[in-house]
Amino acid sequence: MLMAQSQIDGKEMLAIRGTESSGLVGSNGITKDHVDIIKGHGLVRDVITEENISRMDGNCVIIGHNRYSTAGKKKSGINCVQPFVVYTAMGTVAIAHNGELVDAKQKRKEVLHEGVGLSTDTDSELIAQMIAKAIALNVKCQYGQDIGDITRELAVTMSALNMSYSLLVMTFDRLYAIRDPFGNRPLCVGTVLSPDGNPEAFIASSESCAFPANAKFEFEVKPGEIVELSKKGIKSVWQMKPNTPLAMCIFEYVYFARNDSEIEGQQVQSVREECGKTMALEDDLEADIVGNVPDSSLSAAIGYAAQSGIIYEPVLHRNSYVGRSFIQPNDLMRQNAIKLKFGVLKKKVQNQRIVLVDDSIVRGNTMRTLVKMLKDAGAKEVHLRIASPPVKFPCFMGINIPTNLELIAAHKTIPEICEYVGADSVRYLSVDGLVSSVQKGIERVANFSPGHCTACLTGKYPVSIDL
Amino acid sequence: MLMAQSQIDGKEMLAIRGTESSGLVGSNGITKDHVDIIKGHGLVRDVITEENISRMDGNCVIIGHNRYSTAGKKKSGINCVQPFVVYTAMGTVAIAHNGELVDAKQKRKEVLHEGVGLSTDTDSELIAQMIAKAIALNVKCQYGQDIGDITRELAVTMSALNMSYSLLVMTFDRLYAIRDPFGNRPLCVGTVLSPDGNPEAFIASSESCAFPANAKFEFEVKPGEIVELSKKGIKSVWQMKPNTPLAMCIFEYVYFARNDSEIEGQQVQSVREECGKTMALEDDLEADIVGNVPDSSLSAAIGYAAQSGIIYEPVLHRNSYVGRSFIQPNDLMRQNAIKLKFGVLKKKVQNQRIVLVDDSIVRGNTMRTLVKMLKDAGAKEVHLRIASPPVKFPCFMGINIPTNLELIAAHKTIPEICEYVGADSVRYLSVDGLVSSVQKGIERVANFSPGHCTACLTGKYPVSIDL
Amino acid sequence: MLMAQSQIDGKEMLAIRGTESSGLVGSNGITKDHVDIIKGHGLVRDVITEENISRMDGNCVIIGHNRYSTAGKKKSGINCVQPFVVYTAMGTVAIAHNGELVDAKQKRKEVLHEGVGLSTDTDSELIAQMIAKAIALNVKCQYGQDIGDITRELAVTMSALNMSYSLLVMTFDRLYAIRDPFGNRPLCVGTVLSPDGNPEAFIASSESCAFPANAKFEFEVKPGEIVELSKKGIKSVWQMKPNTPLAMCIFEYVYFARNDSEIEGQQVQSVREECGKTMALEDDLEADIVGNVPDSSLSAAIGYAAQSGIIYEPVLHRNSYVGRSFIQPNDLMRQNAIKLKFGVLKKKVQNQRIVLVDDSIVRGNTMRTLVKMLKDAGAKEVHLRIASPPVKFPCFMGINIPTNLELIAAHKTIPEICEYVGADSVRYLSVDGLVSSVQKGIERVANFSPGHCTACLTGKYPVSIDL
Amino acid sequence: MLMAQSQIDGKEMLAIRGTESSGLVGSNGITKDHVDIIKGHGLVRDVITEENISRMDGNCVIIGHNRYSTAGKKKSGINCVQPFVVYTAMGTVAIAHNGELVDAKQKRKEVLHEGVGLSTDTDSELIAQMIAKAIALNVKCQYGQDIGDITRELAVTMSALNMSYSLLVMTFDRLYAIRDPFGNRPLCVGTVLSPDGNPEAFIASSESCAFPANAKFEFEVKPGEIVELSKKGIKSVWQMKPNTPLAMCIFEYVYFARNDSEIEGQQVQSVREECGKTMALEDDLEADIVGNVPDSSLSAAIGYAAQSGIIYEPVLHRNSYVGRSFIQPNDLMRQNAIKLKFGVLKKKVQNQRIVLVDDSIVRGNTMRTLVKMLKDAGAKEVHLRIASPPVKFPCFMGINIPTNLELIAAHKTIPEICEYVGADSVRYLSVDGLVSSVQKGIERVANFSPGHCTACLTGKYPVSIDL
Repeated sequence: MLMAQSQIDGKEMLAIRGTESSGLVGSNGITKDHVDIIKGHGLVRDVITEENISRMDGNCVIIGHNRYSTAGKKKSGINCVQPFVVYTAMGTVAIAHNGELVDAKQKRKEVLHEGVGLSTDTDSELIAQMIAKAIALNVKCQYGQDIGDITRELAVTMSALNMSYSLLVMTFDRLYAIRDPFGNRPLCVGTVLSPDGNPEAFIASSESCAFPANAKFEFEVKPGEIVELSKKGIKSVWQMKPNTPLAMCIFEYVYFARNDSEIEGQQVQSVREECGKTMALEDDLEADIVGNVPDSSLSAAIGYAAQSGIIYEPVLHRNSYVGRSFIQPNDLMRQNAIKLKFGVLKKKVQNQRIVLVDDSIVRGNTMRTLVKMLKDAGAKEVHLRIASPPVKFPCFMGINIPTNLELIAAHKTIPEICEYVGADSVRYLSVDGLVSSVQKGIERVANFSPGHCTACLTGKYPVSIDL
Repeated sequence: MLMAQSQIDGKEMLAIRGTESSGLVGSNGITKDHVDIIKGHGLVRDVITEENISRMDGNCVIIGHNRYSTAGKKKSGINCVQPFVVYTAMGTVAIAHNGELVDAKQKRKEVLHEGVGLSTDTDSELIAQMIAKAIALNVKCQYGQDIGDITRELAVTMSALNMSYSLLVMTFDRLYAIRDPFGNRPLCVGTVLSPDGNPEAFIASSESCAFPANAKFEFEVKPGEIVELSKKGIKSVWQMKPNTPLAMCIFEYVYFARNDSEIEGQQVQSVREECGKTMALEDDLEADIVGNVPDSSLSAAIGYAAQSGIIYEPVLHRNSYVGRSFIQPNDLMRQNAIKLKFGVLKKKVQNQRIVLVDDSIVRGNTMRTLVKMLKDAGAKEVHLRIASPPVKFPCFMGINIPTNLELIAAHKTIPEICEYVGADSVRYLSVDGLVSSVQKGIERVANFSPGHCTACLTGKYPVSIDL
Repeated sequence: MLMAQSQIDGKEMLAIRGTESSGLVGSNGITKDHVDIIKGHGLVRDVITEENISRMDGNCVIIGHNRYSTAGKKKSGINCVQPFVVYTAMGTVAIAHNGELVDAKQKRKEVLHEGVGLSTDTDSELIAQMIAKAIALNVKCQYGQDIGDITRELAVTMSALNMSYSLLVMTFDRLYAIRDPFGNRPLCVGTVLSPDGNPEAFIASSESCAFPANAKFEFEVKPGEIVELSKKGIKSVWQMKPNTPLAMCIFEYVYFARNDSEIEGQQVQSVREECGKTMALEDDLEADIVGNVPDSSLSAAIGYAAQSGIIYEPVLHRNSYVGRSFIQPNDLMRQNAIKLKFGVLKKKVQNQRIVLVDDSIVRGNTMRTLVKMLKDAGAKEVHLRIASPPVKFPCFMGINIPTNLELIAAHKTIPEICEYVGADSVRYLSVDGLVSSVQKGIERVANFSPGHCTACLTGKYPVSIDL
Repeated sequence: MLMAQSQIDGKEMLAIRGTESSGLVGSNGITKDHVDIIKGHGLVRDVITEENISRMDGNCVIIGHNRYSTAGKKKSGINCVQPFVVYTAMGTVAIAHNGELVDAKQKRKEVLHEGVGLSTDTDSELIAQMIAKAIALNVKCQYGQDIGDITRELAVTMSALNMSYSLLVMTFDRLYAIRDPFGNRPLCVGTVLSPDGNPEAFIASSESCAFPANAKFEFEVKPGEIVELSKKGIKSVWQMKPNTPLAMCIFEYVYFARNDSEIEGQQVQSVREECGKTMALEDDLEADIVGNVPDSSLSAAIGYAAQSGIIYEPVLHRNSYVGRSFIQPNDLMRQNAIKLKFGVLKKKVQNQRIVLVDDSIVRGNTMRTLVKMLKDAGAKEVHLRIASPPVKFPCFMGINIPTNLELIAAHKTIPEICEYVGADSVRYLSVDGLVSSVQKGIERVANFSPGHCTACLTGKYPVSIDL
């Protein structure tokens, strides 16, 4: 998740404290060559502590970045933790990047052959060096008065990039929120209001749920747009000429975004409920109760129940005190760990025909154990309903999907999956069902014609991929 | 939580691994003077690790104990961590105790004046020394053949005790599950079945949710009963003559028990849903949606929605990555921490009249912030409904309720609470409503006439308390 | 190491802070039933921290205990960490014990059959329960006026004990320092002086090096004596009638005591230097330089050099940054770890005949590697001289000597050891040489006829051992 | 400390394991774009663990770097931990740097204005980018056959640098050891021999003590020289034309180097003993014993004793179990910590006139407490002798000397120091005495005319410093 804040009057910025981020970089708006940095691996609460957060006091611009723990391990090492900070001829620049450059390999080669050494294999450093180069070329003529303004250099850099990126860029006194022309990753801006309704700070984030409660959601950054946030306010400073189709990642709705976020004008929770409804419409099952795998799939289960008329009943308890840190060395132990994590509400499931709703299946091991637990507890039938289509293709735009071999949908047919997990039937939401569940709401609320990337579900990529 | 297991055939016992316990004691059934011990403060996953759990391999009887993190800090120090292990004239005895002796002070004085030094101020050590004394007195005559049998000594000890206790006692080759004559704390026994349906182990626990998925719930230990678990099976070995009213703690239903546990023949989740229904019956509110404070109060909210006919909608998202470890030094920071922990589903609440259901209110700070967040996000009205009666009196039977000053219900009237939290109205479930929600189901399923301790709600204690 | 302090006027006691102890217990001199406890495994600096030491503020009596890391692992578990605290009929009593009861097994059986459950298998708990029993028997008549006085109960307990023990016992307002009638373990008392020379506190310790710099060494507790320390001062309150030979552990001089301690009137460093001199007198070696294995054996090397006339030269550097925590899984790795721990001063050893002095050899692995390193660096000859006799017999009085199989001297002859370590010759100090090196100085300074236990070197035990 | 190893035959390299380094980078000699990295703050034993060291298995070239804990905190952040790794047009290059560029500020400006963004403010990154640029310029013509050879690029880079630097540079298949033309920092190469005397690996280090025991010291890299280490052996590949005076840092002898290192042909311990002798020659004191502050100043004390004829006696014991981690909040606590760290050998110092030798005085607090402890214990006189001249001027070549205000010699005269520490007299070794103690031995063994930088003692810098 990306997060940035530009503050108006220098008061202590509580809102950003504890943002879900494992890297924070701040600047005081005066010193061009100094930034304050907090970085670390692990959960935000372990990295951004009371002790070190005070380093951010007095900073007028701050950007942060947090990698989801679901993300892959490809790029490790503490110096790969974003935001990436680079000293340039005009002062310090920090950047945070969501997405993945599909042509990173070629771009990297170009930079190296220009004589620039790279310290990491991250896209963020690549983009940072492109910006640094643009700055050095312009440095003499450009910085007459408004030294922190690098709009022109950013526009030059964007023109040399392909997809996919949402960027937050910080100079010593301002922030830039940038979205690639495909709009592949979400990015939105808002205003933090004081108790009496005056703007206190301007913020940008890849997820609106990161906005503090006293923030007003302003708008989503448009595909190909650069939006500047500074103490003067929010300003659209550049718009790339549109020549690409929209390709907003549909997987954000299915998996990454939080229920309390808004994307393309919709509450994410509502989209998930809608997916449940669509799934019920595509279905013709007779059953006694609809249950879910807590906690994530409650919305889809409620949607399914509402549409199908089958009553919703909790069937599983999730034990929050059993941590993920429990790494299990063998299959028996893993099964046991799942049994400790979930408890069956036995009295609810005895002699019932259950529609068990979940958001997705990865390897199928958890589901297999859950189905067994439900049947051991007396369930008559367990019908598995997955509120998203099967993921079958790799994503080159930044979503870290497990490799093909791990994904059960990539190497098993649905009957095979059904047999593997021991369910009485298995159905996934169709791709069309997902797209309509997502776009239906947008059409109602938004004044644009939506377009979504479904590459991981269909194999149709928005750009040609040269591996 | 108490947990014990007696195994039949010496296979590795996976089931007990990771039980929610911060103390485990095991014996191999042969060596009378040796036990294996794992103890520690903190979450089970930090205490009972893969590394040390292997110490339990080969043990035929094991008991475990886990204090809820909600429990008070009165008795700290690692040697206060249960189970309490004591070497006696007949070999090692380990005991785990739930509850609190109401006359501990007097009992302690007696033991000290008999010349026994005590190492802790715990009830468990007190009971352990009483058992050790009973064993030494009987040691010559008693142990002809069945050396691990201490039924007689336990019965002597029980007769000298008042309330409240559920005990698990372990000798080198067997277990005893014991409940005080008031039945104040729950305790149940079960059988772990192999894949082909044969008994593999016999287990006892204060909560049935601790039973592994392949366990059969057998029965609850009766008030005043001693049940023996050994490789021979489960056997009721002694029953105190009943001369006290039943006083099962009603707070277990409200707060402590897990949804997937069964108490007095009922699924705890169903009781909580019933509480929500009863609360709706006691209510006459007009509203648009019923929401809840995730995750605990979902059952009550669903019950309320079903009874009232008002639709259930998720209104808050709980961010599971923000830990409780965040200790906030001041009020502003605490508010901020709550804001990070919960996110409002803005599109769901705008212009809505919300019934916000929660299980309880402690200090009211979290609720105050949540109400403000909902209103900031556009909610028209927020009506708070608490699915339990206000706690107003101290518990001397082992439930660690915060001191009077902290409990908002102890020093504020309901209108004052309403004003403090900023809600449009506040209602609690009535004591009668709670009792009937709990007992209704028991009467339907059980063949006994239930009795519950409501002392913390009503001030009526099952025994006279001498402070 | 044992350490205790009784304070006169309630000022903050800095001196005791950080004493080498992993357990501290303090009492404020007023509350009979409360003590403050700090305990933990590991180095003192990790257990007794700035944060928790403040708990001791305001306490007028404190006792502490620290087990040397050289001590065995037999009795683990945090509740085996001394001082042992026991609540008795007269209030809290804490005891710290150095030594080992040779008849612990029999004593333990007696206590259990009196109906007392024991929580640990430590001698300290056994002694504590004996004291608690003595207190309960006397409790009515005894405590008219001077409630903290348990001299009589301690004398009763001592009469029932055999060897070996040095004890520090604390009641709520005073301390007792007690030595067994054999004088097996050292124990001394002193007075802490204020800058203007007035007594501020009275202290006792098993090693005088624990005394703060501003302390006056008063005297050693006599074998069989009870010395009371309280705000009134230091007082000898009981003396057992002498009927046993003196048997002070000679191994304290060789291994345990610190160079800056005084035992039996002597500077420990001087005894070690004397051992080096005696060893040179027993020797007839031609060599060029005397070197040592840093850091411990410098004194003996200097003594050897002075007596033999061969010049002392440093030949090895000890790298203090390589920690002991490096556990090496195989022999090659262990050799490598030793190589990292020590560096050869190559220019010093080239073409030299070296007398390499060390205090002792345990398994011989370190020595073997060091000899090889010296030879690799060009040493012509390496003659090993060990400033103590070979340890061949187990100690039952509290010194944890590695088991026979590990000790190279227990299963190899001196020529075999010489071959194993690759030296040109190996010699140990003779037992007579050690005894005379130790007793020579005592006779010069002390007004008593010394007697030492040499059981681990000679197999002659001061009492008959019933295993 | 810098450390590098080039291996011949691919066997597991045990020798480098645990080298005193908090950063290790290795390459397998085949893959041009991949290196294995282990980095961390803290002691080597915490960073380079058994667990992560196995990542280095199979690497044929490795370089490591360790900052002394005495070094300043100026450049923190994990990405400032050396070796610095940079991907260039010819593959990965890693560099480790000892020293400090006196004109870093100007060089940095040049690099930024060429359009290169910098991630840190370290000299190592600056040098790395200069190398990367040189590589990109030559990349087309150069890399016909010997792709890992960057001699020419390194020579270009050296010509653009001033002082001070010792560098280890690694390409995917070889190492370069480079010393600046002033020879300011030491650097030496050696050969690791197998048991049968064949070369196994070629190594380079800033201190020969880092060489494993089975290594042969080959030679010191000459000022201005580039030496290549590869599986083919050790080869001098370039020598800068000498046009600068030699200016080897004399402080290495006084403070940084380990006793078991060789610099300029001398055992460091011998130089320190020589300093003690020279100090005795410059002195005319009557005293009874020579003592030292353990452990570092033993060599100087032995030298002083030998030259003066006054007998050496240990007077202080250093307690190795009291860690430096004890941070003391106030002066009283700090004094107390020193008292815990050192114990006086009371019997040795009573009524004695002591020459107390130490290597240096920083703030004087430790010394002040030690003098008081010795006097409290009965010393008649304490004469302080410091085996190095007072440090009065800042170092701009990489030695982190505390700021002027902290150094007692920078703001107090010798009589004032004497009064502050409470000694009877204080003398430092003269600058001439130090220079002659250092150079005397070199002239005897080396075939070059030595030259040393004494800037921190005299204010005479080898180059003009532009701040």
